[in-house]
Amino acid sequence: MPALAPVLARIDADLDAAVARLFDLLRIPSISTDPAHADDCQRAADWLVADLTTLGFRAEKRATPGHPMVVAHHDGAGPHLLFYGHYDVQPVDPIDLWSRDPFDPGVEDTARGRVIRARGAADDKGQLMTFVEAFRAWKATHGTLPCRITVFLEGEEESGSPSLIPFMQAHAGELTADLALICDTGLFEGRVPAITTMLRGLVGEEITLRGPDKDLHSGMYGGAAINPIRVLTRILGGLHDDTGRVTVPGFYEGVDELPDAIRAQWQGLGFDHARFLGDVGLSTPAGEVGRTPLEMIWSRPTAEINGIWGGYTGAGFKTVLPAEAHAKVSFRLVGDQNPDAIRTAFRSWVRAQLPPDCTADFAPHGASPASRMDISAPAFEAARAALTEEWGVPAAYVGSGGSIPIAGYFKSILGMDAMLIGFGRDDDQIHSPNEKYDMESFHKGIRSWARVLDRLAG
Amino acid sequence: MPALAPVLARIDADLDAAVARLFDLLRIPSISTDPAHADDCQRAADWLVADLTTLGFRAEKRATPGHPMVVAHHDGAGPHLLFYGHYDVQPVDPIDLWSRDPFDPGVEDTARGRVIRARGAADDKGQLMTFVEAFRAWKATHGTLPCRITVFLEGEEESGSPSLIPFMQAHAGELTADLALICDTGLFEGRVPAITTMLRGLVGEEITLRGPDKDLHSGMYGGAAINPIRVLTRILGGLHDDTGRVTVPGFYEGVDELPDAIRAQWQGLGFDHARFLGDVGLSTPAGEVGRTPLEMIWSRPTAEINGIWGGYTGAGFKTVLPAEAHAKVSFRLVGDQNPDAIRTAFRSWVRAQLPPDCTADFAPHGASPASRMDISAPAFEAARAALTEEWGVPAAYVGSGGSIPIAGYFKSILGMDAMLIGFGRDDDQIHSPNEKYDMESFHKGIRSWARVLDRLAG
Repeated sequence: MPALAPVLARIDADLDAAVARLFDLLRIPSISTDPAHADDCQRAADWLVADLTTLGFRAEKRATPGHPMVVAHHDGAGPHLLFYGHYDVQPVDPIDLWSRDPFDPGVEDTARGRVIRARGAADDKGQLMTFVEAFRAWKATHGTLPCRITVFLEGEEESGSPSLIPFMQAHAGELTADLALICDTGLFEGRVPAITTMLRGLVGEEITLRGPDKDLHSGMYGGAAINPIRVLTRILGGLHDDTGRVTVPGFYEGVDELPDAIRAQWQGLGFDHARFLGDVGLSTPAGEVGRTPLEMIWSRPTAEINGIWGGYTGAGFKTVLPAEAHAKVSFRLVGDQNPDAIRTAFRSWVRAQLPPDCTADFAPHGASPASRMDISAPAFEAARAALTEEWGVPAAYVGSGGSIPIAGYFKSILGMDAMLIGFGRDDDQIHSPNEKYDMESFHKGIRSWARVLDRLAG
Repeated sequence: MPALAPVLARIDADLDAAVARLFDLLRIPSISTDPAHADDCQRAADWLVADLTTLGFRAEKRATPGHPMVVAHHDGAGPHLLFYGHYDVQPVDPIDLWSRDPFDPGVEDTARGRVIRARGAADDKGQLMTFVEAFRAWKATHGTLPCRITVFLEGEEESGSPSLIPFMQAHAGELTADLALICDTGLFEGRVPAITTMLRGLVGEEITLRGPDKDLHSGMYGGAAINPIRVLTRILGGLHDDTGRVTVPGFYEGVDELPDAIRAQWQGLGFDHARFLGDVGLSTPAGEVGRTPLEMIWSRPTAEINGIWGGYTGAGFKTVLPAEAHAKVSFRLVGDQNPDAIRTAFRSWVRAQLPPDCTADFAPHGASPASRMDISAPAFEAARAALTEEWGVPAAYVGSGGSIPIAGYFKSILGMDAMLIGFGRDDDQIHSPNEKYDMESFHKGIRSWARVLDRLAG
C-alpha cells in the first residue's frame, strides 16, 4: 500500500496551483437555468474532461437533452468508488449586491480567514475540485490511484436535474460502483467534519393564476373584476396555520417523529441556534411552534414561496388589475412523504379555493423523496475515521435541510449506497450574492479525500 | 341673446376643417412622461396658444418646473366658465400593435362607424378641441362668446400633474370662475350623454417587507427562517373578508350607503353588467357580496394589489428564501373617506401583523379624496337639458370608478364646483395601441358644447 504522507505533502505544496485551476473553472459562467449560458455549460464540461484526461482518466462529455454529463473512469486495485459533483451554478442576480464580478474569482482575506470568492466557489465547483485534486496528488506521488474510480459530474443540478434519471438508467452498468461519494454538503457548524445521513426531498411547483383576459384599469374595473394577485395572496397566505404547520391536506403523511436516539445525538452536537439565526439577521425561529431550528431543518417538512410576481412592478405606480399572477412554491420533504402525492394534493388544494372566473395552471419543477443512509455499512466508519484525523475533532453524522436527490437515485436506480461528505460552511452564501469557499475548506477538503481514499482502499 | 341654430349650422359646415385642425395638434407627439418629448410638449402648448389667439383669446403659455400650462381668457357677458383639458398624451408602446403611426392621424371607416385614429385622439386632444371648436363657431357666427371664458390646459396629466397644485395656488385669482367644465370623461355605455357627478379618490402605497438580512437557501434555512413573501401573502391575503369587504380597521368611515334615489336612477340606466364583464372574459362580479358591478365601481371603495414581487421570478426554479418582498397596493375612495387616515390605518394594520424579525417600509404614491358634485346647482340641469337635446336621449348623472383629481382641486383650492362632461367611449383604447375617437363624438361633442354655452348663458 503506497504511503499517505507524501500525498498530503504534495497537496500542501501544490495548493496555489490547485487554486489557479479552480479559478479557470470558476471563470466559466455555467448557469444551467439560463438558456443564454448553454454554451458555457458545454465549456465547463469540456474543461473537466480535459483536466481529468491529464490525470489518466478515460474522460468523456456525454450529451443529454439538456446540459452534458462528464463521465470518467480510472482503474485501480481497491474498491470501485463513484465520485459525484456538479459543474453548473446558480444565477447571480441581484448582481448589484456582489462585491466583485461573480465570474472573476479572487482570493480575499476576511475577518474569518482567506476565502475564494466567486459564483460556484462552494456550490459546487470548489467542492468537486477537492476530490479531483486529491486524485491528482495520488497520481503525482505514486503514479496510481488507491481505488478504482469513476467520476460522474452533471450540469443540471441547479435546474432540477431533468436528464439525470434517464442518463443513470441508460448507463447503469457503467455507473454502478461499490459506493457513491457525493461532495456537495458542509461541515457542521463550520468546524466539525460531517457525513450527512439524512437529506430532505423536494417538490417544486410554478403556479399561474388567470382572471380577466387582459390587464384592466382599476378605475374602470376595480371592485367588480377578479384580481388574480388578490386570489394568489389569499390562497398562499393560507399555506400555513397559526402554529406554522402546512395546511395542505395529507401533507404530513409519512412524516415520523424523530427517534429519541437521534434527537439525543443531535442535542449532543451543541448546535448554536442563536448564532445560526443571528448570522442572517434573525432572532426568532419562524417554523413550527415548539421545535428547534435544527430539528426543523433536518427532520421536518416545509412549504415555502420562493418567488412571486404579477401586475406592475416597475418604478412609480400603475393602477392595473393584471390578467395573471404567478408564484414558485417548493416543499421540502422528510421520511416517507411521497413527492407525487404532495404535488397532487397541493394542486387540488389550490383549485378548491379558486373563485369563479379564475383558473390555475401548474408547471412541475422537480420531485425527489427524502433520503436516509444506512450508517452501519463499514465504509461510513472508515470515512469518519479519516475525517476525524484530518480535522482533529470527531466527525459527526448529521442531517441536512437541503435536497440532494441524486443520493436517493444512486440507491433506487443503481442499488448502491451513497456517502455525503463536503466542506462548505453556513456562511458560504451559496445561491446568494458574494458566494465564497474558505481556503481552509478547499485545502483540508483535498487532504480529507486523500485520507478517505487511503482508508477505503483498505 | 344670439341664436343657437346658426352656430350649430356653422359647426356642421366647418367639420372637415375642424378635423384638419385636430390633426395638426395630434401630429405633435407630446408624451409628457418621456423627457425626449419635452420640446413636443412645448410645441403643443404653442399650437394651442396660437389657435386660441385667433379666436380672440388673450392666450399665454406659462412655464412650470415641468411642462407648460396654457391659460387663455375671453370676455363675455354671461357667467365666467373655466374649461379644462390636457394636451399631453400617453406613451405609444407597444408600437408594433398599432395599425398606423400613432402620430400620423387618419379618419378610418370601421364596423362601428367613422373614427379618428391617433394617440391622443380621445385622451384628451380630441375632447379639448370640442370646446375650442364650439368657441370658434360662436365667434364666427356672432362675433362674440355667450359667456366669459377661461381656458386652462395642462401638459402633465398623464404623468401625475406634479405642477398642477402649485400653479393653481399661485394663480388662484386668475383661474377662479363661477364653474369649471372638465372634458376628459365619456358617454355612458357609448350612447347616453353623461355628466359625471361622483369620482372615486385614490391612495397608493408601496410596501417592502424585510426579513433575513440576505437571500437564504431554503434547504439550509427553510422552516427556521422567516420568509417575507410568506408574510406578505398572509397579510395581503387577509385584505378582504369572505364577503369582499376590506378588513383594514376604520376603512369604511365616511362611506355612506347610496341614496335610494340615486340607486333607482342608476338602475334605470339599464347598464349591461353581463356585457361589461364579458368584454374582459369574466362572468361573475368579484367584489362585495350583494352589490352590482355598477354600484361597486361608482359608489364603493376598494383595495387592490396592483403589483407584487419577490424572490426568484425568472425561468426555472431557485429555492431561495428572499430577504425582501414587495407590493403596490391602491385604494379607491368614495364619500368622505380621508386619504391620509386610510394610509395611516393601512400601515398600522400591516405593522400589527408582522412576525418577529420582519420589518415593513412604506412609500406613498398619491392621495386624493373622492369627489361628489352638487347636482342641485342650476348649471347641472341646464347642461343636462343641452346634452339631452343634442343626443336625443335623456342625459344621465353618472359615477366614475376612476380618479380625476383636478375635479377635487377646483373645489379645494379655488372653491368652485366642477362639471365633468365628455364624449369618449369605452372602446376608445385610451392608454393602449390604436387609440381612436369617434367622429360622432367629435362632431356632436362640439355641438354639445355650443348648446351648453347657450344654456349656461341663461
